[in-house]
Amino acid sequence: MSEARIIFTPSGRRGRVAQGTTVLDAARSLGVDLDSVCGGRGICARCQVAPQVGTFSKHGVTAVPDALSEWTALEARYDARRGLKPGRRLGCQARIQGDVVVDVPAESQVHRQVVRKDADAREVVIDPATRLFYVEVAEPDMHEPSGDLERLAAALEREWDIKSLHACVEVLRKLQPALRGGDWAVTVALHKGHRDSAHRLIDIWPGFHESPLYGLAIDIGSTTIAAHLCDLRTGAVTASAGAMNPQIRFGEDLMSRVSYAMMNAGGAAAMTEAVRAAIDALAGEIAGQAGVDPRDMVEAAVVCNPVMHHLFLGIDPVELGQAPFALATSAALELPAAALGLTALNAEARAYILPCIAGHVGADAAAVALSEAPDASDDLVLVVDVGTNAELLLGNRTRVLACSSPTGPAFEGAQISAGQRAAPGAIERIRIDPATKEPRFTVIGCDLWSDDPGFDEAVGPGGVTGICGSGIIEAVAEMRMAGLVDASGLIGGPEQTGTPRCEPDGRTHAYLIHDARDAGGPRIAVTQGDIRAIQLAKSALYAGARLLMDEFGVDEVDRVVLAGAFGAHISPKHAMVLGMIPDTPLERVTSAGNAAGTGARIALCSLDARAAVEAMVRRIHKVETAIEPRFQEHFVAAAALPHAAAPFARLRAAVPLPEPHFNTAAAEGAPGGRRRRRPPA
Amino acid sequence: MSEARIIFTPSGRRGRVAQGTTVLDAARSLGVDLDSVCGGRGICARCQVAPQVGTFSKHGVTAVPDALSEWTALEARYDARRGLKPGRRLGCQARIQGDVVVDVPAESQVHRQVVRKDADAREVVIDPATRLFYVEVAEPDMHEPSGDLERLAAALEREWDIKSLHACVEVLRKLQPALRGGDWAVTVALHKGHRDSAHRLIDIWPGFHESPLYGLAIDIGSTTIAAHLCDLRTGAVTASAGAMNPQIRFGEDLMSRVSYAMMNAGGAAAMTEAVRAAIDALAGEIAGQAGVDPRDMVEAAVVCNPVMHHLFLGIDPVELGQAPFALATSAALELPAAALGLTALNAEARAYILPCIAGHVGADAAAVALSEAPDASDDLVLVVDVGTNAELLLGNRTRVLACSSPTGPAFEGAQISAGQRAAPGAIERIRIDPATKEPRFTVIGCDLWSDDPGFDEAVGPGGVTGICGSGIIEAVAEMRMAGLVDASGLIGGPEQTGTPRCEPDGRTHAYLIHDARDAGGPRIAVTQGDIRAIQLAKSALYAGARLLMDEFGVDEVDRVVLAGAFGAHISPKHAMVLGMIPDTPLERVTSAGNAAGTGARIALCSLDARAAVEAMVRRIHKVETAIEPRFQEHFVAAAALPHAAAPFARLRAAVPLPEPHFNTAAAEGAPGGRRRRRPPA
Repeated sequence: MSEARIIFTPSGRRGRVAQGTTVLDAARSLGVDLDSVCGGRGICARCQVAPQVGTFSKHGVTAVPDALSEWTALEARYDARRGLKPGRRLGCQARIQGDVVVDVPAESQVHRQVVRKDADAREVVIDPATRLFYVEVAEPDMHEPSGDLERLAAALEREWDIKSLHACVEVLRKLQPALRGGDWAVTVALHKGHRDSAHRLIDIWPGFHESPLYGLAIDIGSTTIAAHLCDLRTGAVTASAGAMNPQIRFGEDLMSRVSYAMMNAGGAAAMTEAVRAAIDALAGEIAGQAGVDPRDMVEAAVVCNPVMHHLFLGIDPVELGQAPFALATSAALELPAAALGLTALNAEARAYILPCIAGHVGADAAAVALSEAPDASDDLVLVVDVGTNAELLLGNRTRVLACSSPTGPAFEGAQISAGQRAAPGAIERIRIDPATKEPRFTVIGCDLWSDDPGFDEAVGPGGVTGICGSGIIEAVAEMRMAGLVDASGLIGGPEQTGTPRCEPDGRTHAYLIHDARDAGGPRIAVTQGDIRAIQLAKSALYAGARLLMDEFGVDEVDRVVLAGAFGAHISPKHAMVLGMIPDTPLERVTSAGNAAGTGARIALCSLDARAAVEAMVRRIHKVETAIEPRFQEHFVAAAALPHAAAPFARLRAAVPLPEPHFNTAAAEGAPGGRRRRRPPA
Repeated sequence: MSEARIIFTPSGRRGRVAQGTTVLDAARSLGVDLDSVCGGRGICARCQVAPQVGTFSKHGVTAVPDALSEWTALEARYDARRGLKPGRRLGCQARIQGDVVVDVPAESQVHRQVVRKDADAREVVIDPATRLFYVEVAEPDMHEPSGDLERLAAALEREWDIKSLHACVEVLRKLQPALRGGDWAVTVALHKGHRDSAHRLIDIWPGFHESPLYGLAIDIGSTTIAAHLCDLRTGAVTASAGAMNPQIRFGEDLMSRVSYAMMNAGGAAAMTEAVRAAIDALAGEIAGQAGVDPRDMVEAAVVCNPVMHHLFLGIDPVELGQAPFALATSAALELPAAALGLTALNAEARAYILPCIAGHVGADAAAVALSEAPDASDDLVLVVDVGTNAELLLGNRTRVLACSSPTGPAFEGAQISAGQRAAPGAIERIRIDPATKEPRFTVIGCDLWSDDPGFDEAVGPGGVTGICGSGIIEAVAEMRMAGLVDASGLIGGPEQTGTPRCEPDGRTHAYLIHDARDAGGPRIAVTQGDIRAIQLAKSALYAGARLLMDEFGVDEVDRVVLAGAFGAHISPKHAMVLGMIPDTPLERVTSAGNAAGTGARIALCSLDARAAVEAMVRRIHKVETAIEPRFQEHFVAAAALPHAAAPFARLRAAVPLPEPHFNTAAAEGAPGGRRRRRPPA
């Protein structure tokens, strides 16, 4: 039989095949990534290709007219029912008759590469653990008796080279009706782990199953839970939803919840029950919102900090509340979602829990590492994920270090006199005029600035309710830049600052931002105590970064990435004015948004990424701040605004910082001497 | 360092070791099977050995006095607390100082061989899937953070060479308290499949766990369920219990239950629920009876026919009620016991379901094959497991054939005029005097014969309630031998037989065995219809055996094994007189008792046996009676008592059979023409 030459684009793979070979078979024999769910039966149309006509001298092949066979009846039927794009053919139907160049469009590739929004982030290869396979199964034969499952396994091996099939009793129950309902053709969803080659039968549908499969990326924060429904074939987010973490009623922050578990019999179990129920409700809500059949939701990927990790898994977190902060398990887990109380997904859906790095550096930090890939960075990058605890990663291609820093909840607006969570009515941005010392601000839920016309009407009476985490950071930094606060953190009095807004407040002063008491609203001021709380938090954060830099043997980093919802809201300049992060050119401080959530989505859709994050976590060197004496030294030295422990030459070149020195009669203690949540050992 | 010579008995393994080596280490280095749970710490005392003193010239070694080191404090402590047999040492404590011969007693071997009661049965090597391992785990270290599970896995690899450890969330929850409660020493129960090398963490106890592990061998019959609690280290049965199968209320026999599932929505689920609840209650009862902690019950092995198999697994058995009798799965299954509704065992206990051979030849037949090992027989053996359906195996070392024969329930006393289940009051043995034609019998629950003095008092009024399966077989065979029934199966009248007990019964006759109507009790007779029912059943049984013999190309078999509770109660002579089984020397017809239950116990305690039964089932050639025309021919030809299709020369040489020919006016149809439960196609 005579042969034809074929070249596939964009891969450039080429070869000779016998005339009459289908494009799909040619692709398989040449190792070209061309999708197919139905195994070449003209049903799924996932093997669509675009034959190129004309001369392609750069490929050395001249595509001849009539290089492919005529349209088949199956192609015509598919086109009539669903529509084939112009120029497209089904790879399993078009037979090669002469030399040809065939383009495989991105949506016809199994392992397609999805370019992340951020230009500098690496590409992610979509390679989900659970995929659909269409097979035609042999009918039973009394002369050669065998089970339906065994004949399904034989068909999967014959058509898809799948060698090991495991089925649980619940799916076995569906097997016989599906085979007979589909006239011995079925679509199965198979889950494959990345550590073994066994395939697990997740579900089975009679005939060809049209719907794609979905997965849920879940980010369990101490305060909020976020979930994103993703199409497992494309990685695209189909729907998202969020909810408060109901564990808040057991304790605002992580250590309160660990204490609750220690002090109350059944306390850990109650918190497990609460968070699982909330996630399950969220999953149901998302499925309804997206109109997705729960049976098509077959995967979940979960990221969270270690305490949330243990409570979600049903493990008492008591060991995480005391040295040596031992995790029950640090490895990634691959579990039945039903074992975690998730009933709104497919009954056999699998959940992947990302690995933890250490007792204070959890799966959320691992997800940030997966998303931001410091191990693939040529320059030295510091990744800061700010929450109640801050997790820090420092590294480049040579190595990556990690630590957790006990910042406490001040950055989230807790332990601040007028502080509140980031919710409508909270001041989130603030500017103080250096000349008049007058503030202007915005609140969450309103786009206007407070000195814009119509602001009062827009927010309504009592519409300004407090100040959130990003707001207090901006406030303190702006006070520093406006000369209302000196480098030691002291607020000046009205005579020193020239503004009556710096009111006496006991033996110290407070800066008044907003007073709605006449209208029955709150009085919002930044007190000396607030400044001290922020100083403590930022000192801890900086000390963690500094400790990693010591360990790495450097005095500066090339770039800083601020991760987390919080990181998305604080401005690099204000963070730098406070001395939260090392002195770095401002244009090299970027926000990664919800990097932990992004990491969860990557792990959800890619087996390679799961292997990668597990390998990376094993290589990351953990530095334990609680037992490192230098952490305490850095912490004490980092109290000033910005602190004297680093020159901050770049900052000072960009931002004028007044140098007042307020000598008040304040009796308040030194920042380093205040009792801290988790004191360095 | 100088060396010493050591010989281990009974293995005969020998070698040279450095002086000072412990006996346990020497055994390990020489590949001697010496048990240890604690890893050589003097805790478990499973490595007990008996050093031999004196001269052992046949081994070529002269054992010297003081060849082993002095007793250690640990041995003294163990002896004081639990007692060491005289002459015993702990292998992990005794160090080799000179040439020595050391005997390893049977109870110190891991893979000990247990000789079955039957002299001709093969030995079974005890090798349970779930075993205990004692380990000392490294404490957490903040400088090298790792999870407790990961350090447990490292300890298991270091001390026991266990490379892969899987833990579910429920056991993870117990991990941290156990490690701390045992001061970083724990005993774990690990389950290993026979198809892969992964170990599953079933349970964890602080410190050294004293109790052995147990398993439950479960035999689910259509009528009764039996369960045996076995010590997994020895295979010994610790306790047994039985219960009626509650599915009986949905249908007496298998096909009635399949019909129930077909006709009633939720019918299959209701039967699943019923049988699971009954087994779970039985497991709880046995644990209580034996005083065993449910946590120590970590395994179950299950045998049953295909319909029971599907209903227990929660699979609708509808396909088993119609050609081609397709099983949902025929392979052996290894599942969480909890997924099968078994809550009375350890929460992570594993259940092993033996493989099915075909749609009518179930896991019970596979268990009989495992127990009786026809594939290891030098002579040609026919194994008959009689129940509602009879399963037959025919084979020897060269090959094994199997079939199922639709005997119907007559052999179990159903469809017999005075028939009943084998329960107290049922006639189970009967003899008829060939001269007087008078019957004598025994009933279940009483050791006296009916003509013994005191029988009436012993059974009480109305104490004889009916006739069970083995009773009706003996009755028909005795009637044949006493000349009351001719070779065609006709009962003679009183004038032909000379006894008034052969009473007219419509247009035929019936033989009166027992009449208690005066005392308000039943009248028990064998009717012509009863004879016909038994003829149908035995014809089906014989036809199945004959079909296998055809397929094997033989006219006779070397020996016959009758399995099943039923097989334990019928006498070979009576079975042969009826023509149930091929003509075989009577001394070569034996009963194997409950061979299916024995097979379940073997599979419970031996991974090797699981692999063996799965391999055997794959090799067994199944003959489907429903589609084999010769089955129908054999069936019709086998109606006579004994039938003319075989010479039965051996039987006639041993048993005098009168040759009357009764020509009654009976209008009853020919046996072969009666409607059968599952007609041959």
